[in-house]
Amino acid sequence: MKKIIAVLVFLSVTASAFAQQALKPDDAVKYRKAAMAFQSWNMSKIKANVDGTFNKDQVVAAANAIAAVANSGIGELFAPGTDMAALGDKTHLKPEYFQQPDKAKEVAMNYLREANELAKVAATGDAAAVKVQFGKTGSTCKGCHDAFQAK
Amino acid sequence: MKKIIAVLVFLSVTASAFAQQALKPDDAVKYRKAAMAFQSWNMSKIKANVDGTFNKDQVVAAANAIAAVANSGIGELFAPGTDMAALGDKTHLKPEYFQQPDKAKEVAMNYLREANELAKVAATGDAAAVKVQFGKTGSTCKGCHDAFQAK
Repeated sequence: MKKIIAVLVFLSVTASAFAQQALKPDDAVKYRKAAMAFQSWNMSKIKANVDGTFNKDQVVAAANAIAAVANSGIGELFAPGTDMAALGDKTHLKPEYFQQPDKAKEVAMNYLREANELAKVAATGDAAAVKVQFGKTGSTCKGCHDAFQAK
Repeated sequence: MKKIIAVLVFLSVTASAFAQQALKPDDAVKYRKAAMAFQSWNMSKIKANVDGTFNKDQVVAAANAIAAVANSGIGELFAPGTDMAALGDKTHLKPEYFQQPDKAKEVAMNYLREANELAKVAATGDAAAVKVQFGKTGSTCKGCHDAFQAK
């Protein structure tokens, strides 16, 4: 049930958000860049841990942060009118993101699933398992970037 | 125990982080701005919910995101050499942050405590309680900004 809710939050712009305060496209871009940069920092911390000395507390905190980003409803930050066709060089989001909704949904679901799994695996403190799951999670980042982010 | 660990993660730059990859000051500023912007977006969502139609799922997701930021170890992003005295107009962090470590610790602890409480209150779905706790959490943001952020 929790998973279903997370998916709904991720994929949908809730009615209340629309009614109360639809984000301006520039703000959507600003916040999604912030979310991705914050996530990137946390991914880099996990990488440093799996490549070097493993500090479980740090890995758990970072993995929880990544899962929280994935579950925060960032789908709202990828609203129509926020791609390169609309905003030029303010963003690297290709128009294909909106032209290929099934693919967009697929990469989003992959990311959400693996990010949630990363938080679960981190909680076990198993460094080898974290390394594997970190790789899977990173692949889902790459999957979206390869499909929808201009170089 | 969980709380103690969170405090340690928040306040300390762990040995492994130092050994493996000390952040460059510019990167620390970039990531902390990202963390704060991501948090700001989530705070704005909760505000929209307590001022308008209350969507529990959205509030829970946002509150969890805020708590995850607070628990992610962002103390590392406020390392020595990352204030205005060192970086000029790249940041609004006053040198007082490092000159008043007891005050810095106090505002950090307030923020961490109230952010964690916000996530707990959000999980209850009690809109009135969320509104109160949202106010308390926002006050701790203001407490740090008033003390250590240049206007």
